[in-house]
Amino acid sequence: MRIMVLGGDGYLGWPTAMYLSSRGHDVAVLDSAVRRQYDEELGSGSLVPIESLRTRVKAWREITGAELVCYHGDLTDADFTHDAVKTFRPHAVVHFAEQRAAPYSMIDRKHAVYTQTNNIVGTLNLMYAVGEVDRDIHIVKLGTMGEYGQPNIDIEEGWLEVEHKGRTDRVLYPKKPGSFYHLSKVHDSHNLEFGCRIWGLRVTDLNQGVVYGQQTEQTVLDPRLETRLDYDAVFGTVLNRFAIQAVLGLPLSVYGGGSQTRAFLDIRDTVRCIELACENPAEAGEFRVFNQATEQFSLEELAKLVANSFPGGVEVEHLDNPRVEAENHYYSFVHTALESLGLEPHLLGDTLLTSMYGIIEKHKHRVDLDLLAPSVQWREARDRVAL
Amino acid sequence: MRIMVLGGDGYLGWPTAMYLSSRGHDVAVLDSAVRRQYDEELGSGSLVPIESLRTRVKAWREITGAELVCYHGDLTDADFTHDAVKTFRPHAVVHFAEQRAAPYSMIDRKHAVYTQTNNIVGTLNLMYAVGEVDRDIHIVKLGTMGEYGQPNIDIEEGWLEVEHKGRTDRVLYPKKPGSFYHLSKVHDSHNLEFGCRIWGLRVTDLNQGVVYGQQTEQTVLDPRLETRLDYDAVFGTVLNRFAIQAVLGLPLSVYGGGSQTRAFLDIRDTVRCIELACENPAEAGEFRVFNQATEQFSLEELAKLVANSFPGGVEVEHLDNPRVEAENHYYSFVHTALESLGLEPHLLGDTLLTSMYGIIEKHKHRVDLDLLAPSVQWREARDRVAL
Repeated sequence: MRIMVLGGDGYLGWPTAMYLSSRGHDVAVLDSAVRRQYDEELGSGSLVPIESLRTRVKAWREITGAELVCYHGDLTDADFTHDAVKTFRPHAVVHFAEQRAAPYSMIDRKHAVYTQTNNIVGTLNLMYAVGEVDRDIHIVKLGTMGEYGQPNIDIEEGWLEVEHKGRTDRVLYPKKPGSFYHLSKVHDSHNLEFGCRIWGLRVTDLNQGVVYGQQTEQTVLDPRLETRLDYDAVFGTVLNRFAIQAVLGLPLSVYGGGSQTRAFLDIRDTVRCIELACENPAEAGEFRVFNQATEQFSLEELAKLVANSFPGGVEVEHLDNPRVEAENHYYSFVHTALESLGLEPHLLGDTLLTSMYGIIEKHKHRVDLDLLAPSVQWREARDRVAL
Repeated sequence: MRIMVLGGDGYLGWPTAMYLSSRGHDVAVLDSAVRRQYDEELGSGSLVPIESLRTRVKAWREITGAELVCYHGDLTDADFTHDAVKTFRPHAVVHFAEQRAAPYSMIDRKHAVYTQTNNIVGTLNLMYAVGEVDRDIHIVKLGTMGEYGQPNIDIEEGWLEVEHKGRTDRVLYPKKPGSFYHLSKVHDSHNLEFGCRIWGLRVTDLNQGVVYGQQTEQTVLDPRLETRLDYDAVFGTVLNRFAIQAVLGLPLSVYGGGSQTRAFLDIRDTVRCIELACENPAEAGEFRVFNQATEQFSLEELAKLVANSFPGGVEVEHLDNPRVEAENHYYSFVHTALESLGLEPHLLGDTLLTSMYGIIEKHKHRVDLDLLAPSVQWREARDRVAL
């Protein structure tokens, strides 16, 4: 089928585009390269060197013979978005093209407003493009498990059967997100659900856990095909950061008490989940939500996994938590939809961690230690911070 | 106390500013006059002539001796918003300053994006201004009963106690809004609830029903103090429109079957509710929601009330529903919080309707009949419509 990957130059978008192409799909990549601009702004960068999208696509063609059509532009440009959808006419669009870091959205007012307008307007423009061009185009949208927060009841897949005062209803699962970024995804979900009701859109909202890992079957084919590995405190996610700290001989930095629990996913499962969602589209008018995560760990459990698997001594330090979040909370989530479609999860184990230590060892001279310390404070409300 | 009314030049903002001033509060009005620009865009206008904000404020001073401080500008201008909050240093801000018409948000993509960015960014800027200047400033935010949609369970006041699989939690009431405008208010509510958690903001979210009526004790003091009466299909609300159709000898236009039920409120209760909310602020960190509505009617019931009270024959016609909404649905909402603070509701009766017929009779030569027919179709997804 024809699949358009929005944000196809990013950490997960790029491996997803290659994976879908390797599975015989006709793939287009749409990206504005704004993720690379964030690096310029923050002075950060991928630990593993990455090539330009142009070079990536060229290398993919050389190695596999498959063409990835590129659309350079931004979803907030409505005409561009409309034209891209109309020209490529995909069966499915996979929508990764959002600002995706919670700390980035919490830097200051300017970044909070940017994150929400960028994500909401991009998604609205996409909805209108699909609504005008062809309402059967399946929108596969990346959300996050962080939208749910840490409720004291089990986290269902997007919808909840409620009984109240002797009556019942099926409602959108109530959310309690923990940053302006997570909030932007909640807003998107509400807008998309409405689009299903009024226009009969087909939407799959993938509430993804924290992704770890850097290699897929495709990224390892050639150094030019590698994807990002972020370790900075703004874009780096926790397991990748712990692995880097272990290799560098630094203590693993746990924010707060460390009992905070999150949902996790292997990067190889991300690409497979996207394929499963595309190949099994939502019905016309259906707003379908899958929890795209396979395991849960507390930060302390993760730190122990790293300490136990790393060949050498590893210390753990507790930093004041820069975020405002619950500790010692209940956490249990349902994740059966994707598995019932055929997902066979890669569970987190020593093999993956050991392979990550190898990747990091190779590139550790590129680490800027200043970028590891948390720099964004949730409790502050500032208009503009000098970066 | 010092109270700043954002959107204080609007249909409800202006009567609220006068009412609070008449009750001895020190009131400021902040407005960008964008509501008047929408009229220019649509060719619409208030049935009752209204004066400029400048003239209104001057008339109020002449009649009462009280000063209303004016801040001319837009909440989407963060520096302006910050400076206004810092300079006036209110105890409470009453936030009416949003694009508030569902049909306006559904005209096309451009108006949907405008509505969401305008409302969300304005509210984010206000949150950051309060977060930086003084977190004890109580934010009294206007929401709408339309955020809830038509759930099959009772509508509680913003929060819901849920029991699920043997566990319990108190969650934000799940929403199913019916337009991009209503969605913008849902997004605001989520952002504000987060602000309470991370910054300890004090927020009261007033989910207001459809307001009817045009006169308060203050608007009738002088013709220069009158507030808007909108009758067009974009900004006019249903009861006002029915009353105008009756006076003009036109059939009352019911969208669809007419069994759709909504929550309603008298304009005199709006201003009193705002006062009650300001005088009884939310706790630090509390996100409090009041359902600001006193009665519920189906469209058919409303049409009958108008037909029975109007001295003369009135016909009812059913138009194809331009909206996508449930008919024959359950509808029951809790509205005890404001009444427990002292609200004594004005219920809809013949006196109010008869007084409205008088107001309309006086100005009926100003009606442009073309503006009464619904022009916005929920089922269409268009980028830009020529207006």
